[in-house]
Amino acid sequence: MSLRFTIEELTKYVEEIFPQIKDEFEIIEISELGSRVKLNVNFKHLRPGNTVSGPSIFYLVDFSAYMAVCANLGKEALAVTTNCSLDFMRKPEGDKDLIAVCEILKVGKSLVVAESKVYSEGSDKPVARANITYSRPPKI
Amino acid sequence: MSLRFTIEELTKYVEEIFPQIKDEFEIIEISELGSRVKLNVNFKHLRPGNTVSGPSIFYLVDFSAYMAVCANLGKEALAVTTNCSLDFMRKPEGDKDLIAVCEILKVGKSLVVAESKVYSEGSDKPVARANITYSRPPKI
Amino acid sequence: MSLRFTIEELTKYVEEIFPQIKDEFEIIEISELGSRVKLNVNFKHLRPGNTVSGPSIFYLVDFSAYMAVCANLGKEALAVTTNCSLDFMRKPEGDKDLIAVCEILKVGKSLVVAESKVYSEGSDKPVARANITYSRPPKI
Amino acid sequence: MSLRFTIEELTKYVEEIFPQIKDEFEIIEISELGSRVKLNVNFKHLRPGNTVSGPSIFYLVDFSAYMAVCANLGKEALAVTTNCSLDFMRKPEGDKDLIAVCEILKVGKSLVVAESKVYSEGSDKPVARANITYSRPPKI
Repeated sequence: MSLRFTIEELTKYVEEIFPQIKDEFEIIEISELGSRVKLNVNFKHLRPGNTVSGPSIFYLVDFSAYMAVCANLGKEALAVTTNCSLDFMRKPEGDKDLIAVCEILKVGKSLVVAESKVYSEGSDKPVARANITYSRPPKI
Repeated sequence: MSLRFTIEELTKYVEEIFPQIKDEFEIIEISELGSRVKLNVNFKHLRPGNTVSGPSIFYLVDFSAYMAVCANLGKEALAVTTNCSLDFMRKPEGDKDLIAVCEILKVGKSLVVAESKVYSEGSDKPVARANITYSRPPKI
Repeated sequence: MSLRFTIEELTKYVEEIFPQIKDEFEIIEISELGSRVKLNVNFKHLRPGNTVSGPSIFYLVDFSAYMAVCANLGKEALAVTTNCSLDFMRKPEGDKDLIAVCEILKVGKSLVVAESKVYSEGSDKPVARANITYSRPPKI
Repeated sequence: MSLRFTIEELTKYVEEIFPQIKDEFEIIEISELGSRVKLNVNFKHLRPGNTVSGPSIFYLVDFSAYMAVCANLGKEALAVTTNCSLDFMRKPEGDKDLIAVCEILKVGKSLVVAESKVYSEGSDKPVARANITYSRPPKI
């Protein structure tokens, strides 16, 4: 299987459909097997105690899986998240960006399953892990 | 068990510790058994197709559980979400606010377990459901 | 929507396709909205400390959801569990049977989502809760 | 950190506390980072269509995590599973044994988080994945 997008093409595509996220995320690596994505942490992602909020981590995890799905399947803007289970394991540092490393585990006819681990940049202890299921739109 | 907060007190408390969320959420109801909370949906919560984003739904669900935890236990600002599993079931309408109805299932010495269902205002079909686990800080 | 099965018909059907579970489960109630099912707890379900094992609780939860799916959709023996998330909240008593109360939350074209709460018979505090997703076989 | 058990010692320990599982599981590898465990698949684990049942997969996953917890922490027979989220991704073959590969992601003061992937023996495509949280008994 060949990759459907280069990083530049995928970045441009994402910014067209989700203009809100421009400058928020950076796609570091994509392949048909997964993705590596950075959340540029700033004030709006923070919580008391100089840490990153849960919703920001969810957002990053979901984005990393969607990038991997796009790299694998092409532009399936209609693919929707049907389930996400998140374990929060360590307190992220508020002054470090967050990196999500996503791996595609299954590409089925109707479901895609991925998992993603989130790290404070420079650390190898995950702050969170998630499994995400996407439902593919039926072929017309 | 008596309630630790009135809605007004809890709202004021939340706005002190999370100034970012002022005007975003409205606490409709709290008791030691759960909470009912509204997300005032606006542009930043939307996704293409006039729907509400997954991270916004996660945010609402987590907030509804945290309000119920505060109502039950008092100000435990250090209580942290350790797990959240979300099922996205229906497409929320982008021009309706979202209501989360949270129920506390267990208050243990170290863990609190809650579940929350999310509805577009005026509908009785849930757009999402979640279970959330909080870890209580050890008593000193 | 009318119910596809009576309790007697569904019990007979289940015993034909899963002979291993005869005498293990009892269907107490079914409707298109859900099911109520009993696990007849015996030695093989127990764990040290006079409690019921996690796999037995998973089994009961999965069975309760499958019965509700059958009641709702008819004989879909090919429908498969794709995700199950379980919270274990209290220690079940080894000398009480377990009751699962399952509610169908969504019946979609490709996915069915249910949740199930498990109680020691006679108690109203859940020992466990679960959400279960089933994938429906594509129509031919 | 040194390993608390050899495979032989851990096998003997498990057979003492869970006599029901003798001959069912085989511990292939343990370390403080994880475990590799085999389920000896036989008739009682099967489902129509020559596949392995969901409860059997849950059982294997939970066992693999418990073995890793024991290897890491020593005999904590009182440690209890508090959450398990399972994705079922492919149909296991009923005539192959199942291998679970478990990795410990976090060992905290009150919670241990692990993930486990399950394979039909000889295949590198996972049939299932799970994340499991254990609660550690408080120190006395």
